[in-house]
Amino acid sequence: MNNRTNEGVQPGPDGAETSSAAADPDRVQNPRYARFIADLLGVIAYGELSGFERLSSDARFSPTLADRAGIGRLAVQEFAHFELVSSHLAARGIDVEQAMAPFVASVDAFHERTRPADWFESLMKAYVIDAMSGDFYRALADRLDTETRGLIGRIDADDDTALLGRLLKEALADDPRLASRLALWGRRLVGEALTQAQRIGIEREFLGGLLFADTADPAAHTTALFAQLTRNHSRRMSALGLTA
Amino acid sequence: MNNRTNEGVQPGPDGAETSSAAADPDRVQNPRYARFIADLLGVIAYGELSGFERLSSDARFSPTLADRAGIGRLAVQEFAHFELVSSHLAARGIDVEQAMAPFVASVDAFHERTRPADWFESLMKAYVIDAMSGDFYRALADRLDTETRGLIGRIDADDDTALLGRLLKEALADDPRLASRLALWGRRLVGEALTQAQRIGIEREFLGGLLFADTADPAAHTTALFAQLTRNHSRRMSALGLTA
Repeated sequence: MNNRTNEGVQPGPDGAETSSAAADPDRVQNPRYARFIADLLGVIAYGELSGFERLSSDARFSPTLADRAGIGRLAVQEFAHFELVSSHLAARGIDVEQAMAPFVASVDAFHERTRPADWFESLMKAYVIDAMSGDFYRALADRLDTETRGLIGRIDADDDTALLGRLLKEALADDPRLASRLALWGRRLVGEALTQAQRIGIEREFLGGLLFADTADPAAHTTALFAQLTRNHSRRMSALGLTA
Repeated sequence: MNNRTNEGVQPGPDGAETSSAAADPDRVQNPRYARFIADLLGVIAYGELSGFERLSSDARFSPTLADRAGIGRLAVQEFAHFELVSSHLAARGIDVEQAMAPFVASVDAFHERTRPADWFESLMKAYVIDAMSGDFYRALADRLDTETRGLIGRIDADDDTALLGRLLKEALADDPRLASRLALWGRRLVGEALTQAQRIGIEREFLGGLLFADTADPAAHTTALFAQLTRNHSRRMSALGLTA
């Protein structure tokens, strides 16, 4: 990636036009907030686009044709989320490719370091990412303008987590020896996800610098959020009968 | 694949119910026709499902994020076709997984023998398959009942071929050395496609035995159809400036 794309999306001089569609004029007209939103939606868009590609190619290793179709359907839903976010950005005069560019390296690194070895690891990966993204979205919700909150809500409403959790439970019931392997895999997924999230946070002043800029201690908030995401993950692993 | 699935879909004893949705009662109530339709839609469904998986995983190698999104969109359209065919089969009391099963080996063999080495080969593969499928659908059209013809028409109406042809033309204009490589690749794709089509035709009495059963010389018809597909392919390659 060259320096130009790494600089990412800056709010343009046409700040008024950019914010015109939103219901929270004060927040939306703040250029730091506008950049935060471009970053947030950029990383979500690239997460969905790359998630779509990875999940749909993993679908091929599903044990049955019905599972292949089921996983394909989830992948298609991720592409639909990518399209939703693209339209939302376009309505604010932001090009989705430009918004995604700064996050390509981190998200790709996450995927390269977490290539599923089989169908079960692929299911678990989709489950962990999906559930953690949901937690993250809900943690952000009250800091977003109405329109962006609505968008994130629509993405979060597609309840893939339930289907993936059910498939994992069935797989674990069929082969209890899977449990230790998937528990280890789950820990690796969360570790890599948080590593890349921190990298993004540092490079883009993403969470600490922007999201919690109005709080007394942004660093503590970030730490608390990460701890919360990890706790929720542990709870979900336990629900599957796995040691997190 | 075991013998049971290889036997594929037989029209059930409830032939009347199976045909009730169609407008051509004579044809649809014929058990040979019912089996032909289950086979035809089974191979189309599996072609779309596996095409979706292959194309969306190839999308990752697109040169730009915009191309990745564009190819992703085509892949999603293939999945939508799979869903359309599934519903059509379900409405006739046929399970899509059962209908696809006999064709998994041949279609997978085609994909394994035609793994694109890069983005250009991937584009060309999608283009050739898409265009040949369209030709094939149009050649069948007047032998199908109204409902099935409508379904095939909807699938064929999504004009991916135009977009893919345009992307290929751009790529060839940017790098004329591509031409000989892609011409060779195009020949290989058609060769493998016709090989697998013949294999399916022999195993399933697919084209010769069923489709042209009402003509004087079914074998000659099959040969003529294959010759027509090859001619159309040559014409398209020439339009791209390639030697077919």
